Amino acid sequence: MTKVAVVLSGCGVNDGAEIHESVLMLLALDRLGAEAVCAAPNVDQMDVIDHSTGKRTAEKRNVLKEAARIARGAITDVAKLKAADVDAVVLPGGFGAAKNLCDFARGEEDWRVNADVGRFLKEMHAAKKPIGAACIAPAVLARLFGNEGVRLTIGSDAGTAARLEAAGARHEKCAMDEIVVDQDRKIVTTPAYMLANRISQVAAGIDKLCAAVLRMAH
Amino acid sequence: MTKVAVVLSGCGVNDGAEIHESVLMLLALDRLGAEAVCAAPNVDQMDVIDHSTGKRTAEKRNVLKEAARIARGAITDVAKLKAADVDAVVLPGGFGAAKNLCDFARGEEDWRVNADVGRFLKEMHAAKKPIGAACIAPAVLARLFGNEGVRLTIGSDAGTAARLEAAGARHEKCAMDEIVVDQDRKIVTTPAYMLANRISQVAAGIDKLCAAVLRMAH
Repeated sequence: MTKVAVVLSGCGVNDGAEIHESVLMLLALDRLGAEAVCAAPNVDQMDVIDHSTGKRTAEKRNVLKEAARIARGAITDVAKLKAADVDAVVLPGGFGAAKNLCDFARGEEDWRVNADVGRFLKEMHAAKKPIGAACIAPAVLARLFGNEGVRLTIGSDAGTAARLEAAGARHEKCAMDEIVVDQDRKIVTTPAYMLANRISQVAAGIDKLCAAVLRMAH
Repeated sequence: MTKVAVVLSGCGVNDGAEIHESVLMLLALDRLGAEAVCAAPNVDQMDVIDHSTGKRTAEKRNVLKEAARIARGAITDVAKLKAADVDAVVLPGGFGAAKNLCDFARGEEDWRVNADVGRFLKEMHAAKKPIGAACIAPAVLARLFGNEGVRLTIGSDAGTAARLEAAGARHEKCAMDEIVVDQDRKIVTTPAYMLANRISQVAAGIDKLCAAVLRMAH
């Protein structure tokens, strides 16, 4: 059975993994006959947002523990995950991807990727295993693989695209229910909620992303 | 556009709304052309569980604020929701349905339903608007409508079924990807993760549940 790591960044669009995108990836992978291996970095979240008001709270929460909510308890510390353990990896979006998997959300030119997440993704890439990323999660890939001129999308936001291109990535505009495939580098991206307004639109793009990633994994 | 209230009980299978079931309901409703109106009671959770260990923590969390994570911020206090506002209502499962929407999880014979949730569901039922419930959420309906001999399912767990029957409900065994329809009382239920092991099995039952609820609403 094909195994696919799903790297989560918490649980909730404003400070963690976007929940719809995460669940839709799990659904798509299951329907395509792949086994999902949910993983997350074992670090504190950059912040905790009250999702009913959009305001930051004084709480502290751990990315791995919150991600375990989406994973129904079956969560692996990404530090323990090796490229040999899985055939592919996908990253849902949500602000957590830009706050906890890397610090793109701080707005600095030189954003950094979490060390464990970076080590795992570089290992996967070196092993020529495919990587899929939705929404803002391609920011992680632009930082790691921009030096190769990786082709990817975050939809159509010019400011965000310019930041990814400054890191060496080549951004392509993409419709909300479509994907950008970098066949040579085995990287697939989709805009998801960077553009979509409806969950069914997100599902369309994520279904295509998971199918493309699994085709590359086989 | 048909409007359907989705009553959430937090965010996470062990102390809140089951996330997969919640998202799959939102997906099914959107695909069927209905608008989801996410709502939750504005109360503290019965408890907070670390989903990576299954252990209770000392934290306090608010059901409405956590449910807002699944709803991407668009959450309504169920106390403010009237039957006239929507055409139907669905309840995903998760322990939150048995801890926060009612206190069935305490194991008492005489479990109680949250006052605001109970008022809204009774109002919907009196207005002959359909109600759908997945997983353990039918425990709420057994308490409210057991006196009418409502027909429902929580799958096949004999102990849980016996408790619902003691409240007057008539339990029917049901496959994980099927539904039980009480046409007279306009109540539809599906076992979801009470029986399912895979998210695609849950999706199958929830797709049928949402379709049946919307047929009754039209």
